[in-house]
Amino acid sequence: VITIMPIAGLAEVESGDDVAQMITQALGEAGIELIDGDVVVVTHKIVSKAEGRTVVCLSDADYRRLALDESSEVLRRRGDLIISRTKHGFVCANAGVDRSNVAAGTAVLLPQDPDRSAHRIRLRLERESGAAVGVIISDTFGRAWRVGQVDVAIGVSGVEAVRDLRGSTDTFGRELVATMTATADEIAAAADLVMGKAAGIPAAVVRGAATSGDGRSSDLIRDPAEDLFL
Amino acid sequence: VITIMPIAGLAEVESGDDVAQMITQALGEAGIELIDGDVVVVTHKIVSKAEGRTVVCLSDADYRRLALDESSEVLRRRGDLIISRTKHGFVCANAGVDRSNVAAGTAVLLPQDPDRSAHRIRLRLERESGAAVGVIISDTFGRAWRVGQVDVAIGVSGVEAVRDLRGSTDTFGRELVATMTATADEIAAAADLVMGKAAGIPAAVVRGAATSGDGRSSDLIRDPAEDLFL
Repeated sequence: VITIMPIAGLAEVESGDDVAQMITQALGEAGIELIDGDVVVVTHKIVSKAEGRTVVCLSDADYRRLALDESSEVLRRRGDLIISRTKHGFVCANAGVDRSNVAAGTAVLLPQDPDRSAHRIRLRLERESGAAVGVIISDTFGRAWRVGQVDVAIGVSGVEAVRDLRGSTDTFGRELVATMTATADEIAAAADLVMGKAAGIPAAVVRGAATSGDGRSSDLIRDPAEDLFL
Repeated sequence: VITIMPIAGLAEVESGDDVAQMITQALGEAGIELIDGDVVVVTHKIVSKAEGRTVVCLSDADYRRLALDESSEVLRRRGDLIISRTKHGFVCANAGVDRSNVAAGTAVLLPQDPDRSAHRIRLRLERESGAAVGVIISDTFGRAWRVGQVDVAIGVSGVEAVRDLRGSTDTFGRELVATMTATADEIAAAADLVMGKAAGIPAAVVRGAATSGDGRSSDLIRDPAEDLFL
């Protein structure tokens, strides 16, 4: 059984804030005690804000420029939308630059090194709680071919990113082929079910997923040389 | 708070079996009573088997032919892999034809009309339980740009498929743009965390997601005319 608990009651995050400390306090107020194996999913927005990744963005032209600045390669363009590869390697809309849930006249960039951000938050949460936990930093990505966005993992610490089942067998004893489960993305998607864009809930605890490990967000990025849709 | 409960203990499904009845029985044995708002996620494999969608597949050549037969359009090809659009409109590998977790010498096709399959299962589950539930039929899809597969919704009944937040406002009062959450896909992904490919658990209950609605799987299919990655 897996339980997903929203972490509500965080104050508005500003540059220099200690997100792990704020989460710890909100968990305490909600009466949630972290236990071994818990995964804390944090939307990148508050991590970016805490890390000072808020920038001035007064116009659509500013926004377009920021998205290009944050991109290493533009894959597609339509109207104001670009689909590009970020400097981290993620393929997403407008390089993850985001104008929602930020103060007017500003935008928020993705964290510079989301795995490192996740790691730092994890160390703090583990020190405060005494539990061995994982941390996933999530963002909301569109997909090719399918309508609607889902949350995915852009920063990973203390959890597996991909579960490689190649070589294991199915219930008929046949070897599974090409079966690699993007568990960190599935956890991010699951957490989004209690977070929601309009609800002001920027973090959640996923309990019971049994996904401890040593993944990195780059495990989830397909090598461009092997990608059929660039 | 959302809870995800695996439905274990289903017998091997054969053509003509009543999947809803088997799920009801397994729920009873597990002591799980469905309540209003629960979403029952069922992997398509057992639905396809019950609906007689098991076919002879003796060789890789058979498999390639089946995948082509089930496709309306091939988008990419590499070695034995094709990425195609199924007759339902889904874009996935090998048109969803699957040789894992099936008897040797056979393969399983997707249900012919997964929304209808979901609807039928839902009516039976509601009659047996007295609760108003949703049903999602899931499959495991790869993605462009990202490593690993995630479960998505290919059949939907009694739940929303996409939550359209356009026009609602963020916590700063700014209107959210381009925010449509693929909630049915997020629920399918969440359920996969307790199902797993090798574990022989073909269904799960997702409780507390508050996603009642009237979605269809086609809500999740992007209009090819608007797709930048075909």
